[in-house]
Amino acid sequence: MGITYLAANRNKRSLTLDMSQAEGKKVASSLCKKADVIVENFRPDVMGRLGIGYEAISAHNPKVIYASISGMGATGPDMNLGAFDLTIQAIGGYMSITGERHGEPIKLGTSAFDIVAGMNCYSGILAAYIQLLQSGNGQKVETSLLEGEVAFLANAGLEFLLTRNNPVKWGSEHAQQVPYKAFETADGHAVIGAAYQNIWEAFMGVLGRADLISDLRFSNLEGRITNRDELYSLIDPEVRKHRTADLLERLSAAKVPCSPVNNIDQVFAMPQVQHRGMQTAVSHPSYGTLAQIGPSTKFSAFDVSEGWTAPPLLGEHSAEVLREWLDLPSSDIDVLIEHRVI
Amino acid sequence: MGITYLAANRNKRSLTLDMSQAEGKKVASSLCKKADVIVENFRPDVMGRLGIGYEAISAHNPKVIYASISGMGATGPDMNLGAFDLTIQAIGGYMSITGERHGEPIKLGTSAFDIVAGMNCYSGILAAYIQLLQSGNGQKVETSLLEGEVAFLANAGLEFLLTRNNPVKWGSEHAQQVPYKAFETADGHAVIGAAYQNIWEAFMGVLGRADLISDLRFSNLEGRITNRDELYSLIDPEVRKHRTADLLERLSAAKVPCSPVNNIDQVFAMPQVQHRGMQTAVSHPSYGTLAQIGPSTKFSAFDVSEGWTAPPLLGEHSAEVLREWLDLPSSDIDVLIEHRVI
Repeated sequence: MGITYLAANRNKRSLTLDMSQAEGKKVASSLCKKADVIVENFRPDVMGRLGIGYEAISAHNPKVIYASISGMGATGPDMNLGAFDLTIQAIGGYMSITGERHGEPIKLGTSAFDIVAGMNCYSGILAAYIQLLQSGNGQKVETSLLEGEVAFLANAGLEFLLTRNNPVKWGSEHAQQVPYKAFETADGHAVIGAAYQNIWEAFMGVLGRADLISDLRFSNLEGRITNRDELYSLIDPEVRKHRTADLLERLSAAKVPCSPVNNIDQVFAMPQVQHRGMQTAVSHPSYGTLAQIGPSTKFSAFDVSEGWTAPPLLGEHSAEVLREWLDLPSSDIDVLIEHRVI
Repeated sequence: MGITYLAANRNKRSLTLDMSQAEGKKVASSLCKKADVIVENFRPDVMGRLGIGYEAISAHNPKVIYASISGMGATGPDMNLGAFDLTIQAIGGYMSITGERHGEPIKLGTSAFDIVAGMNCYSGILAAYIQLLQSGNGQKVETSLLEGEVAFLANAGLEFLLTRNNPVKWGSEHAQQVPYKAFETADGHAVIGAAYQNIWEAFMGVLGRADLISDLRFSNLEGRITNRDELYSLIDPEVRKHRTADLLERLSAAKVPCSPVNNIDQVFAMPQVQHRGMQTAVSHPSYGTLAQIGPSTKFSAFDVSEGWTAPPLLGEHSAEVLREWLDLPSSDIDVLIEHRVI
């Protein structure tokens, strides 16, 4: 089991099904007709070809919430274009706004738009479920990696739509805030956000460069934006004189927002991260105690992570699900196993 | 109105309130007692100090869904630490896994964990609303920028928890897939993902380097990962001989996943993006037709973007909301205006 699988599949049961066999298609159709929620991420035409498209299923199961995640969108000229994280980050524009100022295209450290699509699908299902509770009817929910990415362009996307200028890459800097970036220190990096006037002044105090506060080139935010490179060429060497821990301590005391650039080990070592339950574990049949990242959202009326189960082995629950959902007798299940359908 | 404001505030009404005045606090408390859903993003201790914390409000309004978004988490040793996008990207580890292989820390092109926190808050509210419909009781929902980011570490975070190795930055490359990255072409860049054996072979066919398929250093994925830099030093110059459009056409014909690295103008020019309604507009009192990015998720039973309203002017709906929610007579509203409470 790969790490990506183990990161994405807790609290699921696994049933395998050979859809190339007629018996496999029949089982899939029977399961879909009993499902409260269906989530599928085939290309848009596949479920229909298998006889389990939304129209076919909802005709028998009008309460079903049928959620589809595609690469490029459920309809449209490129609906069947193959897509995965790398190509989506590139085609949807996020790669053009993330990276060093004149650097190479880079991709995000995790498969961000896979995750975003999953989050959009999840909230879409919940919204549809609320409608179901109120109207008695299910519906189809569609999202895609590309649509999730375009929405995620947020202010950068709207900047283009309103100004027709392409947003560009800024490294760790900000188009409208200066000073505000990751600085090199004597022993690593620190991010410092000191664009607001009083914070800017406090920052210069810590660096011992109060003279720059009254320098007309930098005395207000507009000037600091206009003379950005000049300012950084003066400040950068000052920051580099300090060790990260010392600098952060002095900046924090002066109420200048700052942070270390943490590696992942440092993240999970933070008492705050542990306190919020972001490292947890499930019990796994092969691995014993299996670490998991905790939930990002907490609820006062219930504990989200109570009763979590491990990512399943492939087909671990095939027989169990067929018995529970379809009341299949053991003899029928044995035939499916014998025919390698499950 | 800044672009970020215009990107984040459609379909809202705006009421301004001076919470430093007793009358302002009283209005806030009255509104909270009538609210179905409260969303707040002050530091964790502020709402309580204002007399409108969860305990105070839910005592009068047990059906309320009270959602809090903080920087670092609603409780814990760092709960009151100031946080914004730059510091969060650094402290939560995402900056350590995104960027050029030996490059500088960079931040994502939009305020990604602001957006992620909003998405988590939204789905949290929907989940709590489903519980409300079933139990009759509201509840408190908590999320934060930091918790959203740690969850977003996904497989990279779990990789550390399981192996104790820190994931590193890979530029546009992938730790476990080769060749798979953004390549420089004769006139720009193209991303190409050709790690799977048959796709790898097709890619080499397009480049006219079928000889590399049988080269023992590269003949399987394991070899290509081990000899990654050697392989790229052979392929990179071949890719650079081609113009992006020509190369993508030939790769697509050979079924090799690929994509241009689009700027934002190219994204919105895509027929697919337009077909999926990702560019839309609202009518704004000052700007006339105001462009907006469309919704990432579509529903068959209703049109998400029907009836969208423009981001409001500051305080545009102060009087309207107080009339509707609190039945305040015009004379009382005039007093609040006179006292600069609203």
